[in-house]
Amino acid sequence: GGFMQIYRLNIRNNTYIRVSLPAVCFVWQIAMVILFGVFIRYDEESDEKGWHEFKRSHNITSNIENDFYFRYPSFQDVHVMIFVGFGFLMTFLKRYSFGGVGFNFLIAAFGLQWALLMQGWFHSLDPVTGKITIGIESLINADFCCAGSLIAYGALLGKVSPVQLMIVTLFGVTLFAVEEYIILDLLHCRDAGGSMVIHTFGGYYGLAISWVLYRPNLNLSKRLNGSVYHSDLFAMIGALFLWMFWPSFNSAITNHGAGQHRTVINTYLSLAACVLTTFAISSMGQKKGKLDMVHIQNASLAAGVAMGTSAEFMITPYGSIIVGFCCGIISTFGYLYVTPFLEKRLKLQDTCGIHNLHAVPGMLGGFVGAIVAAAATEEVYGKEGLVETFGLSGKFENRSMSTQGAYQAAGTCVAIAFGLVGGVCVGFILRFPLWGDPADDFCFDDEAYWELPEDEETIPPVLEYNNHMINKHQDTHESQFSLEES
Amino acid sequence: GGFMQIYRLNIRNNTYIRVSLPAVCFVWQIAMVILFGVFIRYDEESDEKGWHEFKRSHNITSNIENDFYFRYPSFQDVHVMIFVGFGFLMTFLKRYSFGGVGFNFLIAAFGLQWALLMQGWFHSLDPVTGKITIGIESLINADFCCAGSLIAYGALLGKVSPVQLMIVTLFGVTLFAVEEYIILDLLHCRDAGGSMVIHTFGGYYGLAISWVLYRPNLNLSKRLNGSVYHSDLFAMIGALFLWMFWPSFNSAITNHGAGQHRTVINTYLSLAACVLTTFAISSMGQKKGKLDMVHIQNASLAAGVAMGTSAEFMITPYGSIIVGFCCGIISTFGYLYVTPFLEKRLKLQDTCGIHNLHAVPGMLGGFVGAIVAAAATEEVYGKEGLVETFGLSGKFENRSMSTQGAYQAAGTCVAIAFGLVGGVCVGFILRFPLWGDPADDFCFDDEAYWELPEDEETIPPVLEYNNHMINKHQDTHESQFSLEES
Amino acid sequence: GGFMQIYRLNIRNNTYIRVSLPAVCFVWQIAMVILFGVFIRYDEESDEKGWHEFKRSHNITSNIENDFYFRYPSFQDVHVMIFVGFGFLMTFLKRYSFGGVGFNFLIAAFGLQWALLMQGWFHSLDPVTGKITIGIESLINADFCCAGSLIAYGALLGKVSPVQLMIVTLFGVTLFAVEEYIILDLLHCRDAGGSMVIHTFGGYYGLAISWVLYRPNLNLSKRLNGSVYHSDLFAMIGALFLWMFWPSFNSAITNHGAGQHRTVINTYLSLAACVLTTFAISSMGQKKGKLDMVHIQNASLAAGVAMGTSAEFMITPYGSIIVGFCCGIISTFGYLYVTPFLEKRLKLQDTCGIHNLHAVPGMLGGFVGAIVAAAATEEVYGKEGLVETFGLSGKFENRSMSTQGAYQAAGTCVAIAFGLVGGVCVGFILRFPLWGDPADDFCFDDEAYWELPEDEETIPPVLEYNNHMINKHQDTHESQFSLEES
Repeated sequence: GGFMQIYRLNIRNNTYIRVSLPAVCFVWQIAMVILFGVFIRYDEESDEKGWHEFKRSHNITSNIENDFYFRYPSFQDVHVMIFVGFGFLMTFLKRYSFGGVGFNFLIAAFGLQWALLMQGWFHSLDPVTGKITIGIESLINADFCCAGSLIAYGALLGKVSPVQLMIVTLFGVTLFAVEEYIILDLLHCRDAGGSMVIHTFGGYYGLAISWVLYRPNLNLSKRLNGSVYHSDLFAMIGALFLWMFWPSFNSAITNHGAGQHRTVINTYLSLAACVLTTFAISSMGQKKGKLDMVHIQNASLAAGVAMGTSAEFMITPYGSIIVGFCCGIISTFGYLYVTPFLEKRLKLQDTCGIHNLHAVPGMLGGFVGAIVAAAATEEVYGKEGLVETFGLSGKFENRSMSTQGAYQAAGTCVAIAFGLVGGVCVGFILRFPLWGDPADDFCFDDEAYWELPEDEETIPPVLEYNNHMINKHQDTHESQFSLEES
Repeated sequence: GGFMQIYRLNIRNNTYIRVSLPAVCFVWQIAMVILFGVFIRYDEESDEKGWHEFKRSHNITSNIENDFYFRYPSFQDVHVMIFVGFGFLMTFLKRYSFGGVGFNFLIAAFGLQWALLMQGWFHSLDPVTGKITIGIESLINADFCCAGSLIAYGALLGKVSPVQLMIVTLFGVTLFAVEEYIILDLLHCRDAGGSMVIHTFGGYYGLAISWVLYRPNLNLSKRLNGSVYHSDLFAMIGALFLWMFWPSFNSAITNHGAGQHRTVINTYLSLAACVLTTFAISSMGQKKGKLDMVHIQNASLAAGVAMGTSAEFMITPYGSIIVGFCCGIISTFGYLYVTPFLEKRLKLQDTCGIHNLHAVPGMLGGFVGAIVAAAATEEVYGKEGLVETFGLSGKFENRSMSTQGAYQAAGTCVAIAFGLVGGVCVGFILRFPLWGDPADDFCFDDEAYWELPEDEETIPPVLEYNNHMINKHQDTHESQFSLEES
Repeated sequence: GGFMQIYRLNIRNNTYIRVSLPAVCFVWQIAMVILFGVFIRYDEESDEKGWHEFKRSHNITSNIENDFYFRYPSFQDVHVMIFVGFGFLMTFLKRYSFGGVGFNFLIAAFGLQWALLMQGWFHSLDPVTGKITIGIESLINADFCCAGSLIAYGALLGKVSPVQLMIVTLFGVTLFAVEEYIILDLLHCRDAGGSMVIHTFGGYYGLAISWVLYRPNLNLSKRLNGSVYHSDLFAMIGALFLWMFWPSFNSAITNHGAGQHRTVINTYLSLAACVLTTFAISSMGQKKGKLDMVHIQNASLAAGVAMGTSAEFMITPYGSIIVGFCCGIISTFGYLYVTPFLEKRLKLQDTCGIHNLHAVPGMLGGFVGAIVAAAATEEVYGKEGLVETFGLSGKFENRSMSTQGAYQAAGTCVAIAFGLVGGVCVGFILRFPLWGDPADDFCFDDEAYWELPEDEETIPPVLEYNNHMINKHQDTHESQFSLEES
């Protein structure tokens, strides 16, 4: 018994990924080469010949009409959010910063390739040629699609191996493409900033996985499950880039012109309001009124999540502020009271608190979107504005706004369902004892997967000695020169 | 006597903000909801219906003509400067980095909402509807307006409570809107990058407040009034983002086309020249020629400040370089000699040295702008170029260039006056013993307002133990496997 | 003998730059003022009068046609790569982070001014007026031109003085402008992202300098030639901004429209693939499969380097992925095996491993570009697309694609030759004992050129004491209030 237990512990301690990680990376990357070779081509705005023909056929005289110039600045902002934003937000743990930013980098780079294929098959497969054509909007959508899995990583941070994360991403991107197809194409919802398809799905997906992977003895790693002064500052880099660029995130694929313009204004205002209520609740939540960096880094972003659906609608500036106002309160309360409750009562370990930053604000955003859509009138949007904003052409021409609202609400439920069911299934896959995840007493520790540099503490004494010696040398030297000069 | 003194010290030591901060945040944020509801609407380029009508009435065929596409990339750069640039530049103190970046976040998020209202009332209130309409340019202006108060924060860093900062911002934004109205509308100055309205005003505003709040015993906190190795690197992130994006700051609201284009070139060149003279003077200022991070982080930015007014003019590329050349020298000299002098003789404690980075270079920039404006000729600008660049239409049609130059100089004086007088008044408000500011021996310390994580020094020993144990486990495990395999 | 040796050591120890650095900065900056005054003017799209005339003569109705709007977002991304990307990538050393980011700042700011002149003389000197006109594309090219010298800095990091770096940059920019003229103008190669002219040249230039400056006793500074936990995170900021913005780097000066659009897609895909193979090889290279931050920070960027030439061609999406796939493997292998080999056998000390990140991937990129160019057909590009993409007009009208491919390959060789020969010459200049470089036992140490703040370790005990006292004060105070209230 005793021996077996130690033996098991040792098995679980095997975090060697020297075979599994390279194998997964190579197999998948080779698969990408083949699948891209078979399926992916440039679209008519990025193909050299195609663009010349497109300009002729559409009577376009200037290259500035290329979709690239409408979307590229937003794309780059989104790209920064995915890699620096999400990546550095997850560096807050004192000894898991390499894993936070490094594995985020790995799975996003894998996920976006798989996303281009999955989203292509569902949304832009040419039935005649059998090809998927891609342009700048596809790249944005691929980044968005990864975001779902990166959110899920937030719940799992420090408790899983990079191989497990690759699996989370493979299935996460796949599920994302399907639920997105159902929500955006079949239900014909609008969700440009992804309150539903990205945040609600990603949040519940991560929570469900984490619930299945519950570790009863995680408190053995408790001493590493926290921040230090400088790791909190690194996390603040991520938080601020997310906060600043969220207007670009929500507006990146909205309609050209007033659509993108208005989305930016709404998201900007909502986020600003959210900061104030976050600071307020954070201060109220501590005996002496002290602020908590976890709230500032996370809850202040909840408004961006919650505006994902409705920011492109005519929600009005004060409507945006009200949404931000409420989200700051709800999200900070979540960090103060709900996360501890979930961990104790529901056995749900959520390292980054994605429940409060993504799952709940995303769901709220979906319902806010439903209400704002249902309240849309021709008086406010204009006839063509209403058609354009909600895409009410073709077979959706006769859909009423209240019906649209109902479908939006249904879309939110689809996202929740996909997240929960998909997450539970993926969670069980991750429980196979093959993937090199760390033991309960070895979580939140970069030591498991990274060659770590020596400790910082070893420098100063050496340095001091060095400085001392140098100064001695230099002083000697100076006096020698002085002698020569004099 | 003795008892009273201790008692006073204790009063001053009360940095509890559990009531005051949430109260201020909630009151002001609720006020924002109401005021935005009453006053703020989308402008014709962000309103769904409005944009369709605007395109029709202005005979515009392409959405790319929406002001959004002219300004959004610059806006995002400005946004990064406000939150990451200013925020991280203020993380240089060894134990006030949370306060530097965190309170900057809080007051900027509050300030920009208030700025949209204040600037709206003064500049774009529709007299018929009584509404303010906002678009992307309004967001840039709101960020600019905050900058004035963030600059002031630089002088106060580590010595005030977040509640005091909210007050500084409330009045700062208000004063800004008034002086901006006087300078830009009444005097009809040009000041696209805000040498006068932002930097001169913000600099003197902060200095005046700091002068009123003079702390004779601040040396009790002396041990925390300095940097450590890594906090200087965090500050360098802020400094570089400010430096890199300053061309966007100065060009964000200049005229479309050649105006924005030229402003970028001028600012870029001026900043590059400034770096070289900053390094030169910094090295000359130390006995052994060693460089000082404070100079590199701050003085190299002075050229951006000083080009705020004249960068949009035809100052010529070498003119820009000359301005940068001088600013690097003046600003670094300021850090070496003026700041210590001000502190000793004028009892002016200026934590970040905004005197050298904003007040003086801003004032210089105002006067450089006056000279360049006065020297403008139709030969260089062309007839329509002159009208467009200086806005000499309507009731200013007949203003001569020398008159314009005189008004520009007058504008600089207005900015100084507003900063000094406004700052003194606000300083006295801040002296009420209500706002939870720290005692003289508790300055520059995040401990006052933040729940701090445990110290970094406590990790390694635990870690070492852990690694040791893990390795032992894994070695055992390995050998077991080897046995099985052999 | 003994005395002389100590004396020599002392000479070499003289890192005082109080005279030389300011002298160089002032002389060169004053030269810049004069040369800019004589030569540099605004081009027709940034000149106030010129743009109005340009619009009239070209029948342009909208300011959005100004090249500024096509290129400014990419320019800002490139600017971030130069200053934050390269700068922070070089902060990885435990005690040379100030030098890494600080000297990068200095030499880039100097280099870009000199580049505007050198590139102007070679590429855009008006033979009639004798003036160089500059616009946004010139600024991008100036940043590019600096990149060559910054790459060279990577090989020299920690071993040279800032004065030596200024010399490296002065000659580096000069050589760059000449080889660029030969490659792009005389040989008429295409190299928008600079695989050849930037990376191959810069890489071999730095390696040749480092080879000439070989330090046999560098192991005296061994203890500082490595990272610590947080310095690796700072370096990750640089790495990620380089990685994210590389699509902008490669597309910044490609043709408007489909050209820029396609370049972004190709670079984005290639970089994503490169990340996966980098992680795979990094894990395989260590006994326990642990990942190495050096590889993640550097090798994952190699694909961007290698796509510099061919990203604007119709290399196809899967072609881009294949290039990325191979680069991740080659570059990581380089870090694992080639760099140690070069140091041992070729006496080549390459601090950042630019051999693996720039020299080899750049050279590969040059040859990949040659192959893709040679394989270009009218069928794929269209007639006008082929002419536009490869600039086959004027005297190059009749060049066949296979000839173009041969010239591209020749261009790569020119870049290597310029790098090696130029680097050796500059290396010998740097060996004059005038420039204040550090002794072998004083390398990788900011102490040599920077006033360093006190050590971090001195804070906590003081802090602890402080907190203790404060809490005592506050508790006392609280109880007093309670007494009063009761």
